[in-house]
Parts: sequence; structure tokens; C-alpha cells
Amino acid sequence: MENFHVPAHEIDSRIARLKQGMRSRHMDGLFIAQRMDLFYFSGTCQNGFLYVPARGRPQLFIRRSLARAVAESSLAQVAPVSSVREIPERIASCHGSPPGVIGFELDVLPVREFRFYRQLLSARHTMDASDLILSVRSRKSAWEIAQIEHTAEVSRKVFEYIRETLAPGVMEIEFAGMYETYARRLGHSGQLRIRDYRTEGYNWHVASGTHGACLGLLDSPVSGRGTSAAFPSGASRKKLAAGEPILIDVGTVVNGYHMDETRMFAIESMPPAALDACRACIEIHDTLIAAAKPGMFCSELFDLGVKTAHKLGYADIYLGPDGHKVSFVGHGIGVELIEPPFLAAGRKEHLESGMVFALEPKMLFTDRFAVGVESVFLVTDHGGQLLSRVPVDIFIC
Amino acid sequence: MENFHVPAHEIDSRIARLKQGMRSRHMDGLFIAQRMDLFYFSGTCQNGFLYVPARGRPQLFIRRSLARAVAESSLAQVAPVSSVREIPERIASCHGSPPGVIGFELDVLPVREFRFYRQLLSARHTMDASDLILSVRSRKSAWEIAQIEHTAEVSRKVFEYIRETLAPGVMEIEFAGMYETYARRLGHSGQLRIRDYRTEGYNWHVASGTHGACLGLLDSPVSGRGTSAAFPSGASRKKLAAGEPILIDVGTVVNGYHMDETRMFAIESMPPAALDACRACIEIHDTLIAAAKPGMFCSELFDLGVKTAHKLGYADIYLGPDGHKVSFVGHGIGVELIEPPFLAAGRKEHLESGMVFALEPKMLFTDRFAVGVESVFLVTDHGGQLLSRVPVDIFIC
Repeated sequence: MENFHVPAHEIDSRIARLKQGMRSRHMDGLFIAQRMDLFYFSGTCQNGFLYVPARGRPQLFIRRSLARAVAESSLAQVAPVSSVREIPERIASCHGSPPGVIGFELDVLPVREFRFYRQLLSARHTMDASDLILSVRSRKSAWEIAQIEHTAEVSRKVFEYIRETLAPGVMEIEFAGMYETYARRLGHSGQLRIRDYRTEGYNWHVASGTHGACLGLLDSPVSGRGTSAAFPSGASRKKLAAGEPILIDVGTVVNGYHMDETRMFAIESMPPAALDACRACIEIHDTLIAAAKPGMFCSELFDLGVKTAHKLGYADIYLGPDGHKVSFVGHGIGVELIEPPFLAAGRKEHLESGMVFALEPKMLFTDRFAVGVESVFLVTDHGGQLLSRVPVDIFIC
Repeated sequence: MENFHVPAHEIDSRIARLKQGMRSRHMDGLFIAQRMDLFYFSGTCQNGFLYVPARGRPQLFIRRSLARAVAESSLAQVAPVSSVREIPERIASCHGSPPGVIGFELDVLPVREFRFYRQLLSARHTMDASDLILSVRSRKSAWEIAQIEHTAEVSRKVFEYIRETLAPGVMEIEFAGMYETYARRLGHSGQLRIRDYRTEGYNWHVASGTHGACLGLLDSPVSGRGTSAAFPSGASRKKLAAGEPILIDVGTVVNGYHMDETRMFAIESMPPAALDACRACIEIHDTLIAAAKPGMFCSELFDLGVKTAHKLGYADIYLGPDGHKVSFVGHGIGVELIEPPFLAAGRKEHLESGMVFALEPKMLFTDRFAVGVESVFLVTDHGGQLLSRVPVDIFIC
């Protein structure tokens, strides 16, 4: 684990695909500031910036720590900068006159910083490079899939720990702390990475009994109750109890690669209505993974989920009760917990071989409880392939 | 805890100060999207947006959940919106023609969203409202100070737990999970809130022995080793051992209000050089808190720290070794872990009564270990007042 690094062939292939996309968009240079984009394209997330020219070698500028960046990144050109103001000169000395069209991560770059960098780099024209970056990131390499499988194995053990330790009388939020501590022993680094500035990633999403039925702020059928108005989602201070459906949604990240999985638990028993709905969620989950094929629209998988829920008699509560339904059933996953493409209504992106998704059919019984399942799967030429190793089952402990 | 809410008089006073600042800047309206600003000015962080006119009542627009937002916020005008596209009409129906000059949170709002909202709201002129918002937030009310004191009490108990459970053979990252689980039992909600998109907040900052000496990406003398190149700061998989200085920096957040405190620990003993440096850090800490007075420049406190370190013979390693020093010794703290103003070199903001700071004099012995201390203090008319309740001491367990 200590010796983890992103291999040079990975970085080379990512940069090559990025540059190809830049050239087809007539982008002369791309300035990367966001931490996970930096990690993906350079292998380091030290404090710095990456400049990628459409033609020529990328330059990694490091504020701190240079020694660690050099050790972590396979890029040839890694230079210290004490101030970002040194960057334009460094680019010019390597690539000549300033690039005409510069791409920026406009989906995350705050306006104030954008204005500063635009002026600093004397950009004549700027372009939004977010979609290009995220499109390159959406197709996972064999090496990345192996990373995700490694995280999946850690996550499998975490769910085993959950099965063994689930007990009445423990607070939802405390129980989450227990399994997270265990996960850290196995390599989980603690922080789920989230791109959107209005979304918060956390891995204490335990929603038991009526707390599972709380409508809330999340773009998910299941928000949970949270601990107060200041953090109104996820686990609460409610104690786990026998006889209740307990939804546990665990995010795990090892060496930067995420897993995102949900299973249903109960202590002793859960109501038959909940059990039937859990089985329906699993049927939808299995149906969608079996149907996933390169070339399909993302919306087709979403629509198939709705159709299957309808056939099973759960149209009214699938993805939330009427009036509160969400319009997505899955999301890409990789070095960030939530990445495009989205398995959502109306989304016309195509599934491609190498894409990895978290698929999460869930249902909410108003004022009663929530149920659901979530696994991570890979799109292959031969169809969907489960990467999750947690048994796709309902756990009565 | 479950009944926590931000009182109406708090919200009214915050909005009044905000509107006064808007009028003096000739800002007609202010559009708030960021979660903690939304929480601060409305009392809720449900999924929504707040529009504050320079004259007239603020309007809170909620996507989900309306019921929770209504229960949590004392604002009179809380309206559901199924799409943000409904917002301009709602503003117009309440306040007439669109505002001429609209303020936005340009320090956090991504370019893509800013462009969308600017067009949506037909803004003729836009203005950066970040500094105004953060200036209003920097002066804490009596109610807020009571919230921070409540968090301080939780944090005190967490440090007591750390003293009682610190043991050799436990991994840094696992030990952090243990004290975080305990913190959650007492009300800690888990997520430290960070404003800057390139900074990550986490509360597993345990840096023991040589791992404390790792230079790294943080704008802090002590970065820690982290778990891999993908998360290269904070606790690592190194096991705690007797005889080493162990720096533990704990972030705790209860009902949205943060504490940020560091203490030095050791199992059995620590090297005399470390012990002496710990005492020097405490002397700098005490000197700065005693010196803090309304009207001082922030830079004066920073400079006094440098001067005191010099007097004590630690100029070379104070705030990092030569060539790697950081130029700040403290930061504001409140509903976000790190807020302006900064106790930093050259900063000419004045200390004001009601401001709350985390003060963190730290030192790094290259290749050996790190030491330091961090407490939270309040600026009062009579000087600095410690809000931290953890004894300002060195703990040999």
C-alpha cells in the first residue's frame, strides 16, 4: 500500500487520450487545478497545477511538496514554483508563445480563480474542458479496474464486519464510526471525493426504521435523518433496533479508487413488506446489470428500471414516493464517488466498454422505512459484470 | 440535539448586517448557493437557494425537502421550486423588476454555474459578495460563541478519550477512527466543512514520530504522511510506538460549529528536544492569546509569534524548516473549519471583538518529528479568551 503509485503507462495513455480530445476541440492548452483531475493525469495530488499542451509534454508545477510529487508522478517535467505567477514564464520557455485557446475545469473552478488564471496565462480564448476530462476519466483501464476490484475486496470485508457486529442499542452514527474504523485498518483512506461543490460525500449513511423514510436534501430516494439541521442527511443519533429495515450505504476508497455499495440489514427480522421490496430492488438491480451493453443510451437502463419496478408492482414507491422521486438510478464511479455518465432519465450518453457504474435501485415507504441495494458494475463487450463482492442479499442478523 | 435550530433573532441580525453591507456596496440583490452560507443566513442546509434583496424580505427557494426547510428556517418566505428556472419569476413577483447589481459567492461558485445563474437572473452587473459574506460571518454572536463552547466541551472529552486509549501497536489511521467514533457518540456530526475547493477537511490528522516530519501538500508545517499518493496527508498506516512525539490535531463539529485543536502526546516518553519544543510552542500560544486585542492587525499577531520563536531559540524550525515555512499561524473558525481572517504575514485586517480563531504554532524537526499546539480563542474587548477546554499541556500516557 505504501508503495502504491500510478504506473507511467497509465499516465501516458490518459494524457494521450486527453490531448487527442483537445486537438479535436481546437484547444491549445489545458490548465488543471482540481485535485482529483491532477491525481488522475499526473499520479500525484501534491499542491500544484498541471499544464497540458495539445502538442508537447505536460508540465507539472508544484508548490509543495516537490520531493513527494517527483516520487509519485511519472511525468518527466516536474518543476517547483514558489508562486503561481511563475507559471506563464515556465510555459513560454518550454512551448513558446502563450496558447491561444486554453481549457479550464469550469464545472469546478470558482469564478474568482478562473479570472485570475485567465489573466495570468494571457488566455485569448478560454474553453470549458470539464466534459472532455470527465469523458476521458469515464473509460477505465485494466489497471483501474484492478484498483476498483481491490477496493471491492476491502468493502466486502467491511460488510462482513457489519454483519458480525450489528447490534441493537448502538446509535446509527456510532455504528458507522465503528465500521469506518475497521475499513481504515484495511486500507480505506477515509475521505470520499466529491466533485460538486454543493454535494457532501460521507460514509455514515445508515438509515434505520422510520429514519430511512425521512425525505431530505439528497438527490437520492434515501436521505436519512442526519444529526441536526446543520448536517441533515445520513446517520442520526437514533439507536438501531430489532425488527426494523436498516439500510447501510458504504463508501470505501483505497488508493484513490471508490466503491459505493448498499445492503439491507435487520436485527432478528424485518416486516414482510420490507422484505418483499428488498427482493424487488435486487430483481431490478440484477435485470439492469444483465441488460447493460455498450451502445445503449444511459436513459435506456434508467427506463428499464422504471419498467421493471412497474411490472413488480412498485411503481408508486420506486426511487421515492410520488412527488419526491429522483430521476436517476446510477452514476459513474472512479477517483471520485460520483462521476458522469449518469444512468438517468433522458440521458443520451452511450454506455461504453470500460465504464464503471454504481447502480442503486431504492424505494421509500412514506413514514415507515427505506429499502434498496447498490452495487458497482463494469460495462464489458459482453455485458454488465459485477465488481462488487458483497453478496447481493438481505442480511438478517 | 435533535431540537437544535438557529433562533430567529440570529437570522434576523445576520441578514440585517448583510443587507447593510450590500447597500454600502450598491448591491441590489445577493444570490446564495453555497451550503454553509445558506445555513448561516437561513438556518437550513436543505437543497435550495437564498435570495437576499438590499431592501425587503429574503426569499428561500427549496428544491428538497420543503417540509424540513420550513421546520428548520425561521425565514418567513420559504417557497418550493421544482426547477431553479422558476426563481426569477418568484423574485419579480415579490420585488418587481430584476435587480441591477447582483452579488454572488465568486470565491466558490464554479464558472459554469455562475454563467447559468447570471443569465437566469438577467443580471446587468454582477459583484463578488464573498468578502462581504465572510466578513459578516467573522464576527460571532453570543449565541454562536455558546455553540462553539458546546463543541469545545465535546472536544475536551474526545481528548480525554485519546489520553485514556492511546496505545502502542495501533495504526495512526485506525486510532483516529476510534476517537472519531467516540466523538460521534457525543454529537460530532463527522464532516468538517471546508470552503476552498482545493483543500480537504478531515479529522484523522495523527502524525507520530518521523511521519510527523514528512513535508507535504498542506498549508501547514505538519502534513503527515497519509495513506498513499492518493491521500498524502494526515494519519498513515504507521503504528503508534512508545518514545515518539505524537501530534494529534482533532476537528470536531457539533450543530455546524467547529473546533480545531492540537495537543502533543507520547507513550511513556518523548525525546527531551521534543519536549522543550512543545513547551516553546505553548509559550508562543499563550503569548499570542494574551496579546490579542481588538484593533490589532492580524499580521501583528503573526509577527509576534515569529519574534517569540526567535527569542526562544526556535527561529529555524518554527512554522516549518527553512525553505518550507508557512506564513500563517492561525485562521478564523465557525460554520467552516477555516474562515477569514487569517493570522498571517502581511494581513492588514483588524482583530475585532467577537472574532474566533484557531491558533496553531507548530515546529518541524527535519527527518525526526513534529511538535505543536492548537487552541481556539475569542477576541474580546479585554483581550484574547481561550474557548478550548482541553488542558494546554503535553500528555505523556
